[in-house]
Amino acid sequence: MTSQPRLLTVGTGAVGAIYSWRLSKSCNVSAVCRSNYEIVKKDGFDIESAKFGKDVFRPDQVARTVSECVTSEPFDYILVTLKALPECYNVADIIAPAVTKDTTIVLIQNGLGVEEPITERFPDNPIVSIVAYIGTSQTEPGKIKMVGKESLVVGKYLGAKRDSEKQRAEFIELLKKGDCDVQVVEDVEKVRWQKLFWNAAFSPVCAMTGMNTTELLANEEAMKAVKNVMGEVIDAAIANGYEFDHDEQMHAMISRTEATATNYKPSMQLDKERNSPMEIEVILGTPLRRAKAKGLSVPNLELIHSLCSATNAMIMHQQSKKSQL
Amino acid sequence: MTSQPRLLTVGTGAVGAIYSWRLSKSCNVSAVCRSNYEIVKKDGFDIESAKFGKDVFRPDQVARTVSECVTSEPFDYILVTLKALPECYNVADIIAPAVTKDTTIVLIQNGLGVEEPITERFPDNPIVSIVAYIGTSQTEPGKIKMVGKESLVVGKYLGAKRDSEKQRAEFIELLKKGDCDVQVVEDVEKVRWQKLFWNAAFSPVCAMTGMNTTELLANEEAMKAVKNVMGEVIDAAIANGYEFDHDEQMHAMISRTEATATNYKPSMQLDKERNSPMEIEVILGTPLRRAKAKGLSVPNLELIHSLCSATNAMIMHQQSKKSQL
Repeated sequence: MTSQPRLLTVGTGAVGAIYSWRLSKSCNVSAVCRSNYEIVKKDGFDIESAKFGKDVFRPDQVARTVSECVTSEPFDYILVTLKALPECYNVADIIAPAVTKDTTIVLIQNGLGVEEPITERFPDNPIVSIVAYIGTSQTEPGKIKMVGKESLVVGKYLGAKRDSEKQRAEFIELLKKGDCDVQVVEDVEKVRWQKLFWNAAFSPVCAMTGMNTTELLANEEAMKAVKNVMGEVIDAAIANGYEFDHDEQMHAMISRTEATATNYKPSMQLDKERNSPMEIEVILGTPLRRAKAKGLSVPNLELIHSLCSATNAMIMHQQSKKSQL
Repeated sequence: MTSQPRLLTVGTGAVGAIYSWRLSKSCNVSAVCRSNYEIVKKDGFDIESAKFGKDVFRPDQVARTVSECVTSEPFDYILVTLKALPECYNVADIIAPAVTKDTTIVLIQNGLGVEEPITERFPDNPIVSIVAYIGTSQTEPGKIKMVGKESLVVGKYLGAKRDSEKQRAEFIELLKKGDCDVQVVEDVEKVRWQKLFWNAAFSPVCAMTGMNTTELLANEEAMKAVKNVMGEVIDAAIANGYEFDHDEQMHAMISRTEATATNYKPSMQLDKERNSPMEIEVILGTPLRRAKAKGLSVPNLELIHSLCSATNAMIMHQQSKKSQL
């Protein structure tokens, strides 16, 4: 009998807790926690999920930093569920102490270009890039509430320097043992672009105006802003070689929101309300740079990126003032 | 000996109080007050100004509404110093009860197109359109603090249906009797456009990002947003027949701000912080419509207008919820 695969989760917040819990059915799980460290170390995660049930999840090991988790036994997987903030930190630096030559690096993060710092720093390590559709939040430290279903989309990351087919297949099996809904696609980046059509348009307009999705749909000017930004992001995806029908995508994103929006606040808006940095670079910065690299004129994307970047600078300035007190 | 001219000030806030006070040296002044009515009726305005000195200014009459001021004796001048919010109210409706066939309507308001509702409703009345450069605020109801100098720019409003040359000259004399600094130009609208170059760019970027002018100047992304919007507003002015050198104007606006900015918050930003409606239509809406009427593509102006309009809708929604309590 072989021992269980060893998994290290870095950034064990709402998403990290759910997937660590599901993977703990077949893995030995170490969790790096920050703001929730004390309570999780003591009592574990108190999880409530319509899909997966209620449970207390106690990782096999709970630590404050990646270095604390490093022992002679290497990790088979490092699962990164950190907020994607290249403007604040480099994920590669954070995970580096635990990466060995056989470690598979798994990313469940939002946005476009999140793989780049990893494949640049660890070109010889297998990478598994995953897009998650899940509604979960940490209502207080260690308390996780997940609504609705969840779904993970896994596919090849074409920018990788090495093949990870075997590792991808093995990790999908582990997810399935935890009853996760896994969808396999050819090219994961196409899915990242498509998720961006919504996220790069609705999220910053909600964040800037203070409107939730329902209020936004009812306001003509706000929807004009959404459509103007979204149209440019779709064009950027097409210019980067992805086959999308511009009008069809726009229509699908908006009508799906109309069908399902119930005063929903995107994470970017919640971050702003909590005075916490928003994921601007991976949601607006990367598509902007890729659009410009193809010679596209994207003034709406550029302006909303500038406004959100400047707002983020203010948020980080407030934070640094607070931490100096 | 002839009696003093009768002046009615509508919207007696920080700007209205200063100019009513200066005009009271030669006019009989009635003031319509709202939030500051009780205190002004009782104690007058407590004014502190480096340029004009300290004084208590008691208008000859203080009222809550225009109708309350209407007697058998008509007003020679109605001075409008209301916030310019065509999205909330029509100034013409508000002043209508006091307008007789001989009343000269004087506007000291921000933005572009503020004369339109007046000349449309009262085409036969003389109109005097003034742009003010003044730093004054009402620190608490009835308490006015004015910093620095002030300057008024008066010129012909070419959109008027009738000539007002005589009334303009007379009103300038009254202002000068109050020691006001008055500059005369040929066409007042050119000055309104020029003030907009600053106000349509710096103000909404400050409002959206939460940065004051000093913070904004230090942030590259915020300045990119300012320049992108300002460039389009300058182009809109040129397309509308005004002779401006694009680069020279841009440079002048930015370097003047660099020379004088000391953590200044534009009124649009202060309004947003106070959850009070911002002057979006006269600052962003009118130049946007005039740019489009000339066939210009102004995506930056359009997006910032949409975001600010939607934010204003949220502010007004909050206000109406509060007033229902």
